[in-house]
Amino acid sequence: MILKQRKLLTIVSEVTIENRLLKDLERLGAKGYTVSAAHGKGPRDQRTGDLEGGNIRIETVVSNEVLEQILEVLEQNYFPHYACTTWVSQVEVVRDERY
Amino acid sequence: MILKQRKLLTIVSEVTIENRLLKDLERLGAKGYTVSAAHGKGPRDQRTGDLEGGNIRIETVVSNEVLEQILEVLEQNYFPHYACTTWVSQVEVVRDERY
Amino acid sequence: MILKQRKLLTIVSEVTIENRLLKDLERLGAKGYTVSAAHGKGPRDQRTGDLEGGNIRIETVVSNEVLEQILEVLEQNYFPHYACTTWVSQVEVVRDERY
Repeated sequence: MILKQRKLLTIVSEVTIENRLLKDLERLGAKGYTVSAAHGKGPRDQRTGDLEGGNIRIETVVSNEVLEQILEVLEQNYFPHYACTTWVSQVEVVRDERY
Repeated sequence: MILKQRKLLTIVSEVTIENRLLKDLERLGAKGYTVSAAHGKGPRDQRTGDLEGGNIRIETVVSNEVLEQILEVLEQNYFPHYACTTWVSQVEVVRDERY
Repeated sequence: MILKQRKLLTIVSEVTIENRLLKDLERLGAKGYTVSAAHGKGPRDQRTGDLEGGNIRIETVVSNEVLEQILEVLEQNYFPHYACTTWVSQVEVVRDERY
């Protein structure tokens, strides 16, 4: 089976900005996303997700170009203002037209 | 510490097919799996997980051979019929006899 | 955008040991973590998460050195006693001072 290379972007952030974040992801070219509930602790000792309805963990599989756009918007509009943890993995997908 | 190479397969799909999917994974050689609740949106603009009890996000760590078998069954029996998003990552495990 | 290499460690285990595990992760150098609820099945056919409040799925992004420390403690203190599944992925992060 032929697999295609894509990037998996995982964003953990405050549930209060879920809708705004998802709209930005779609606007920047993400064709789909998966959201699950989470709680956690960040590097500045902020314990998140205990109050305010918890955290969200968003995953989206995207091309390199879309990833770059999303990371720039995160860096400009989200990282300075919100508890937001992000990491990128190399993944393979079967149906590349979907991502 | 010596780590062994395996594949992590993540499947996001409709909760209604959870049991069928998990049975197929086990039948095809997956020795374990992790399931968590999710919601999301797919590339054909289908918003999933809002109705019908949401989505599931299944993770299973498998060998290359088992992965290939599972992907073939997904492609034949699931992708044409269900909202189903899948990606594969390279991972390392400590205790290779478990996967 | 310059991305830095880190390791993503995922641990799936019993919810009863969540606090102990998180304390160990922080003591060993993890600067943050994300926890979500899960259920699943392990290689010894133990069905976990159905009783006792379910499983937890912990993710932490760490350096190679911190990863090595955590894996040693897991191997000594957790793997022999608890249903515990662990895998490691290579990931990239934007803000390396956070991990």
